[in-house]
Amino acid sequence: MKHNVNQQIRLKNRPTGLPKAPDFTLVETELPGIDVNQILVRNRYLSLDPYMRSQIAGRHITGAIGEGDLMLGETVGEVIESRNSDYKQGDMLVLNGGWQQYFISDGTGARALDARIDPASLALGILGMPGLTAFAGLGILGQPKVGDTLVVSAASGAVGSMVGQYGRTLGCRVIGIAGSDEKCRWLVDTAKFDACINYKTETVADGIDRLCPDGVDIYFDNVGGETLDAVMWRLAIGARVVLCGLMSQLSSETRPAGPNPATIIKARATVRGLVVFDHWQRMAEMVETFMPLVKSDEIQFLEDVSDGLKAAPAAFERLMCGQNFGKTIIKLD
Amino acid sequence: MKHNVNQQIRLKNRPTGLPKAPDFTLVETELPGIDVNQILVRNRYLSLDPYMRSQIAGRHITGAIGEGDLMLGETVGEVIESRNSDYKQGDMLVLNGGWQQYFISDGTGARALDARIDPASLALGILGMPGLTAFAGLGILGQPKVGDTLVVSAASGAVGSMVGQYGRTLGCRVIGIAGSDEKCRWLVDTAKFDACINYKTETVADGIDRLCPDGVDIYFDNVGGETLDAVMWRLAIGARVVLCGLMSQLSSETRPAGPNPATIIKARATVRGLVVFDHWQRMAEMVETFMPLVKSDEIQFLEDVSDGLKAAPAAFERLMCGQNFGKTIIKLD
Repeated sequence: MKHNVNQQIRLKNRPTGLPKAPDFTLVETELPGIDVNQILVRNRYLSLDPYMRSQIAGRHITGAIGEGDLMLGETVGEVIESRNSDYKQGDMLVLNGGWQQYFISDGTGARALDARIDPASLALGILGMPGLTAFAGLGILGQPKVGDTLVVSAASGAVGSMVGQYGRTLGCRVIGIAGSDEKCRWLVDTAKFDACINYKTETVADGIDRLCPDGVDIYFDNVGGETLDAVMWRLAIGARVVLCGLMSQLSSETRPAGPNPATIIKARATVRGLVVFDHWQRMAEMVETFMPLVKSDEIQFLEDVSDGLKAAPAAFERLMCGQNFGKTIIKLD
Repeated sequence: MKHNVNQQIRLKNRPTGLPKAPDFTLVETELPGIDVNQILVRNRYLSLDPYMRSQIAGRHITGAIGEGDLMLGETVGEVIESRNSDYKQGDMLVLNGGWQQYFISDGTGARALDARIDPASLALGILGMPGLTAFAGLGILGQPKVGDTLVVSAASGAVGSMVGQYGRTLGCRVIGIAGSDEKCRWLVDTAKFDACINYKTETVADGIDRLCPDGVDIYFDNVGGETLDAVMWRLAIGARVVLCGLMSQLSSETRPAGPNPATIIKARATVRGLVVFDHWQRMAEMVETFMPLVKSDEIQFLEDVSDGLKAAPAAFERLMCGQNFGKTIIKLD
């Protein structure tokens, strides 16, 4: 294995609509030597996340990815060479390593991988950013109470499955919304959701009417669009709505309208927008909360793992049309 | 003056679109004698409010008004006969007396008129329900801080003018949105708003861009529609949005869409729906807060007063198309 060649996935064409694998290209670049204060990291796991679609579109708060640019993304990586006294060879880090084999860094934005996290890829999923999204979004913005009816969309994804299971441990009645019978079965049988709506075989409106006759106390939204609209008309008095992601419009060139504001007034609802980076300082608190629940199997997880950097574009394509089943992870050789 | 005849305004036709004066009809009914525990109240002032449009449409949370029904509304009235030991002749009350000269009641829902309130009609305006709407909506849901930029729509109305002036006393920079130069002049010159956008001569988007380059910290919305949408795209990080009324859609048969939810996520905003009845127990606290500010002229008020019950339909028509200038009050003979 030569260390002076680095494989990268770059954006080839800014897609319109859903991104496809051919919108990306694999390139080999020469890896320079590292300077004083730098470390050379070999990426072991790469996380693929829906927010990357917004980066490609040039409208994400973390910045834009242009045509020809390296795709950005969080990784778990191993320090294989260090000229920085804060790091030594063999250190395992969680950092923004990008869609590539190697990453040269001065350590900015990196954090040590908690050695208890096993498999390490969970540091990119339910014990990482998606876990923190669920922890802060439900725990802080959602203000859950025992007995609340909690509905979560994209429920089998990393964020959704944690929102539902965390909600269950807090005493909520949990209803998932997902896009296949297989996902719904996993959510009910394994993740112990109280019920699940397969929006491909029943409208969300009908499902909520059937399962939540007294309305929805907390809605954790990962999708926006018609799903959000259907739930908003079915909020209980005093409901909390956490807006976390807008899967339904990520690949849209236009910005569709949202639910009628009367839905918010009628329910005296509180609707809040979540950006996980605002809660980054709670990462350790989240890990300490979720770790024992994961170790005791009270919280289950699903990973959708593909092997090798080359697999990333196709995996991202699947993620963006909801064909993933669990947290999308690329295992790098 | 005979007490056995009662003039009433009733709904004649449920209007589509903006209500017009001929949608209402004046009828004379016989006034029965009062029973044990009842009081006979002569209405002195009648409040006309936009929410009545929703009652006519049959979709207000307080209930529906059907064709042929008496129009409902809050009044200041005088007890002229009492068979209830809690009330005596001459007592002045604030109650749901309706669009009529006389009202027979057992006292349910009535409160004593605070004798310090002068003119008494203010108990229907800035020292009554609209005042409470401003007090609870801004003070509790809006979470105002010194230095916040506060924007309020329908700013020269009873609620809007109080929101802005209360916000000023709390240290906010206050921008009004209103529909004429005359209204804007009153808001800036008399009510001491920092600035006002006349949405008839400048788009709300341009006005906010011009006056709030750092975004809007608190938006108190009385109108919905395009105004709400324009402000939502211009929220500052951590903004609070209070949804209070939806003037723009009250006369619409359909429920238009709302702002794109990305506006809420981007600003990490908190959007809350206000129903004033939830805060009724704070009425006395509101009066104690606002009374000294009104007495010392720190808070100004505007009333749009018409004389006689017959004038109510035309005054309501003007209110519903924004041609009122201040709180709409009918002074009954």
